[in-house]
Amino acid sequence: MAETGEFELIGAITSGLPTSPAVRVGPGDDCAVFAVDGDVAVSTDTMVENVHFRRAWSSPNDVGRKAVAAAVSDLEAMGARPVGLVMALTVPSDLDATWVSEFSFGVREECANAGVLLLGGDTTRGRDITATATVFGDLQGRPPVTRAGARPGDVVAVCGRLGWAAAGLTVLNRGFRSPRAVVVAHRVPEPPYGQGIVAQQAGATAMIDCSDGLLADLAHLARASGVAIDVETSALDVAEPQSVVAAAVGGGDPLTFVLSGGDDHALLATFAEDSVPDGWRVIGRVLPGEPAVTVDGAQWESDAGWRHFQ
Amino acid sequence: MAETGEFELIGAITSGLPTSPAVRVGPGDDCAVFAVDGDVAVSTDTMVENVHFRRAWSSPNDVGRKAVAAAVSDLEAMGARPVGLVMALTVPSDLDATWVSEFSFGVREECANAGVLLLGGDTTRGRDITATATVFGDLQGRPPVTRAGARPGDVVAVCGRLGWAAAGLTVLNRGFRSPRAVVVAHRVPEPPYGQGIVAQQAGATAMIDCSDGLLADLAHLARASGVAIDVETSALDVAEPQSVVAAAVGGGDPLTFVLSGGDDHALLATFAEDSVPDGWRVIGRVLPGEPAVTVDGAQWESDAGWRHFQ
Repeated sequence: MAETGEFELIGAITSGLPTSPAVRVGPGDDCAVFAVDGDVAVSTDTMVENVHFRRAWSSPNDVGRKAVAAAVSDLEAMGARPVGLVMALTVPSDLDATWVSEFSFGVREECANAGVLLLGGDTTRGRDITATATVFGDLQGRPPVTRAGARPGDVVAVCGRLGWAAAGLTVLNRGFRSPRAVVVAHRVPEPPYGQGIVAQQAGATAMIDCSDGLLADLAHLARASGVAIDVETSALDVAEPQSVVAAAVGGGDPLTFVLSGGDDHALLATFAEDSVPDGWRVIGRVLPGEPAVTVDGAQWESDAGWRHFQ
Repeated sequence: MAETGEFELIGAITSGLPTSPAVRVGPGDDCAVFAVDGDVAVSTDTMVENVHFRRAWSSPNDVGRKAVAAAVSDLEAMGARPVGLVMALTVPSDLDATWVSEFSFGVREECANAGVLLLGGDTTRGRDITATATVFGDLQGRPPVTRAGARPGDVVAVCGRLGWAAAGLTVLNRGFRSPRAVVVAHRVPEPPYGQGIVAQQAGATAMIDCSDGLLADLAHLARASGVAIDVETSALDVAEPQSVVAAAVGGGDPLTFVLSGGDDHALLATFAEDSVPDGWRVIGRVLPGEPAVTVDGAQWESDAGWRHFQ
């Protein structure tokens, strides 16, 4: 990692960090070094200004928190224990220094929420703010939960929110800032930290982080497992602010947010029917057949529904 | 990690990858999972178009190889064994698809050179090409070699080239493409893979990757160790193409490239005088005193020398 690169941003990000006995070498050397227990899980996620966020819509603190949350959510989806995170940050040369310090504060705040240690980073110059969070977890002797183990007869369950961030983005795209609950959900997701291990210990047969949207991510899982999945809309909640947004933008079906909206980072997992842990809600079933996802037994007209809100 | 994001670049990067029994879960799931032996070392490095490379000067293969080499070099500098790498790549929407596939080929080629497995990645859209390589190694029960252990009486040794990439960049900045050896060195560094562990096993007391330039990186090491360092120019080689470039651009001292040029990713380490391993050259001494780096006992007028070539 860079000592400082051409400027001293790394100090703002890494000074006075919390640490633990597992951290053998913290920020400031060529590498961070840390102890792990068992196999290591790793994931990397990039957020680019004006692609994944806008400075006008999200505070620097929001951006830092979202970058961490989206990355740690991938560890949860493997049943791994979050251990450490490194942050590579690219910023324009004319960016106000307070943006970086507030971003760093958000990174540190969300690392604390997620139970992961910030171990270092790299800062570089570039035209657009770009944040790449790479996270590591360990398996502590447990097997990872992949996308590939769902079996016909399993149920599909969710832990966390679906379609809140998408409703928030719809509001922002139309120039509004309320209902506030969904706008906040777009700015900072709330992954169900700790529930990945809970699912693993309950015997989850497959798991995925819901980042692309419920139907899209279940399709990834169905393809990896070689199964069909049917989602039951009677088991899905449409929240009041989602209905408000749907009505405000012309009366589309708010269920579209729930089925197709991404970026909330709920966890989706399959379990034997009698093994679903507390805090998880059964929303569908795993069926034999060609990999596909149906809604109440039929194909969902997602494109038509979705475009309504764009 | 993203399954595919909004487009299918990840397939070009991760299809048909070499693997090993240590890889429990390869690309395509929420995380990669791999076995490690002992503590884990991690580093992350970003390269941004028009800041760290130019498309007109470096092929996509060059950029991919350089991104890997610069990151793995940090593992070498801790005495860690390279294990895995994840690559986050941001590309403009109008970028030719062959750029990405040739970049990916370069990444895979240099991963093979470095003895590290490509375990996954993330692809996103953005205005400028941005590549963030995050690498992991393990310590196999050995202690890491930090920057902080140099002791008065140690010698300073180098393994690898100094000032070749800077001479190449000087050439390119002036619109030329030769001497070819230094231009190639700018495009693709050649870190001395494997020598980090050699240095650790020989008892290196401190080590750093030479990315900012010899004097700058020794200053980092001196500060971390609380020692002074003197570099002996009689022990430094000026290579023939460095002299050619210095003469061509007006007769500056080519030693400036050696002392101040970065991006070659040589390894710099301190050893007890009788412990320097084969393949390493003694170039200076560790002294008691305030942290500082001198050249032949005096302060080096690096700024004046360096600006001559800009």
